[in-house]
Amino acid sequence: MSVFTPVSESQLAAWLKNYSVGALSALEPIASGIENTNYFVTTTQGRYVLTLFERLPAAELPFYLELMAHLARHGIPCPAPIADLANRYLSALNGKPASLVTRLGGASLENPGAADCAELGSLLARMHLAGRSYGGYLENPRGPKWWRSAAAQVRGFLEPASAALLEAELRFQARHRFPELPRGAVHADLFRDNALFEGRRISGVFDFYFAGVDCLAFDLAVCANDWCLVDPQRDRRLDEPKTLALLGAYHAVRPLQAPEREAWPVMLRAAALRFWLSRLHDKHLPRPGELVKVHDPDVFGEILRLRAAPGAATPWI
Amino acid sequence: MSVFTPVSESQLAAWLKNYSVGALSALEPIASGIENTNYFVTTTQGRYVLTLFERLPAAELPFYLELMAHLARHGIPCPAPIADLANRYLSALNGKPASLVTRLGGASLENPGAADCAELGSLLARMHLAGRSYGGYLENPRGPKWWRSAAAQVRGFLEPASAALLEAELRFQARHRFPELPRGAVHADLFRDNALFEGRRISGVFDFYFAGVDCLAFDLAVCANDWCLVDPQRDRRLDEPKTLALLGAYHAVRPLQAPEREAWPVMLRAAALRFWLSRLHDKHLPRPGELVKVHDPDVFGEILRLRAAPGAATPWI
Repeated sequence: MSVFTPVSESQLAAWLKNYSVGALSALEPIASGIENTNYFVTTTQGRYVLTLFERLPAAELPFYLELMAHLARHGIPCPAPIADLANRYLSALNGKPASLVTRLGGASLENPGAADCAELGSLLARMHLAGRSYGGYLENPRGPKWWRSAAAQVRGFLEPASAALLEAELRFQARHRFPELPRGAVHADLFRDNALFEGRRISGVFDFYFAGVDCLAFDLAVCANDWCLVDPQRDRRLDEPKTLALLGAYHAVRPLQAPEREAWPVMLRAAALRFWLSRLHDKHLPRPGELVKVHDPDVFGEILRLRAAPGAATPWI
Repeated sequence: MSVFTPVSESQLAAWLKNYSVGALSALEPIASGIENTNYFVTTTQGRYVLTLFERLPAAELPFYLELMAHLARHGIPCPAPIADLANRYLSALNGKPASLVTRLGGASLENPGAADCAELGSLLARMHLAGRSYGGYLENPRGPKWWRSAAAQVRGFLEPASAALLEAELRFQARHRFPELPRGAVHADLFRDNALFEGRRISGVFDFYFAGVDCLAFDLAVCANDWCLVDPQRDRRLDEPKTLALLGAYHAVRPLQAPEREAWPVMLRAAALRFWLSRLHDKHLPRPGELVKVHDPDVFGEILRLRAAPGAATPWI
């Protein structure tokens, strides 16, 4: 349960007087999420999510909030931060930086099909196009530099075979950089549980707190490794129809370029490495006071093995 | 019918490629409105209103659009302009400045009761508070200077009694200015048909194309003259319960000040004068190519007479 900093109704009612969203009707803690304290907030005006930032560097928060605001005003269905009467997206609540964002309707899909992957591909491409005019800059905080630092912290906990895979992949990635790939603001964590559907349409994408500037194809690879599996529980090879649906729908909105095709197998491995490392780190080096269930790192160890295997199939449109 | 500039599906589909809102599903002209060409637009992403600006000075458009964007990001339920891929709220369509804004759900009330007037009062106060941090400036384009110019154009069409009322009111207003009243961005045209309700809640206020900077109490007076009548069709005196509900709910969010109480009867007359003049102008000096039904000016002539009558009741909290 992800409430690190409790907020009472009376504290929140007082805080909301600095906003134009009416009076508090209901406050409900949100049990998922591993980084922040989240509550559902209902007022006489509408439905919102309150986030108290527990760990993110304060200097990075404007990048995330302004990015959401930018995408929302371009029509991307994502949480729109609400400005307070002093015109700020962030203000202190119980000693933490806090923000209020609109709450989206819909539900996540556990087993998306090819049509859902196409819907995601189309939305991701629109998000990348809309992000082009975003002025904020934050290097992907979980990029290659972070991989090396995380690897140094976790390698002592690994079995020899896993340690060897990790070292080999770090070397492989260091040899395969693609400075010419289109870059921009990317979500970088758009797993199935960060997207909501109403019917066959995505009604919202959220949790932008791992966003940063990186290769656009990396964002697509993060999605493929979670959305386009033959079976998310039992067979984590890429499913060809789902992968082609994702890539094809993306390509129809933002045409993929030749260097992106060339980089694709490397991007899939980089995206697997990044989540393997963060899950290993969360498991072996838990933060003090950590209350949340840690995701199993082995899932991404296996995905990396599969993507890095000689002759691994990497479907491409 | 308010389509001055027709837009075809293929024209719109091409124009929408500059936005991140998905592909066009449906296009439907909107029959109300007297200033602009409006269409309902549905895309694979959502529901929008397309406006082609027919008459407003291009230099004023950013004031309106940025005001809507400002209020929307403060949580006020109003149309949110959608930015295009070049990050602009305005771009040309069929030779006219055009914008796409979110479409709000709900329906207008023909006969609002006291509870509905309270809901309006609360929202108006929140809108005024949120507007304080808005940086744009446009003097109310239908303020005293415009009254004098419009009066000069229409007085020749009036019966002697009406002409005398008009002259007397212009002199009265000139003697009663309130430079000390709180001012800010006001909607200035928040009639019943510019507010949408879902159940007992306002789900949206729209048509900000008469907005400007003016006395906040003037905005409240415009609302009282349309929302708080004993009977909008037959008895246009102010209804005491409705007026007190409007003022009381407003006051609970933004406390009204002593000078605003003093100015209230003058504001009610000013608000009546402004709409009497604009309706007289629309009736007697129609624009070329005008296709819309003109509102009856006599309604506001009568409201002005009632508000200016010696001993007229002006309920106050």
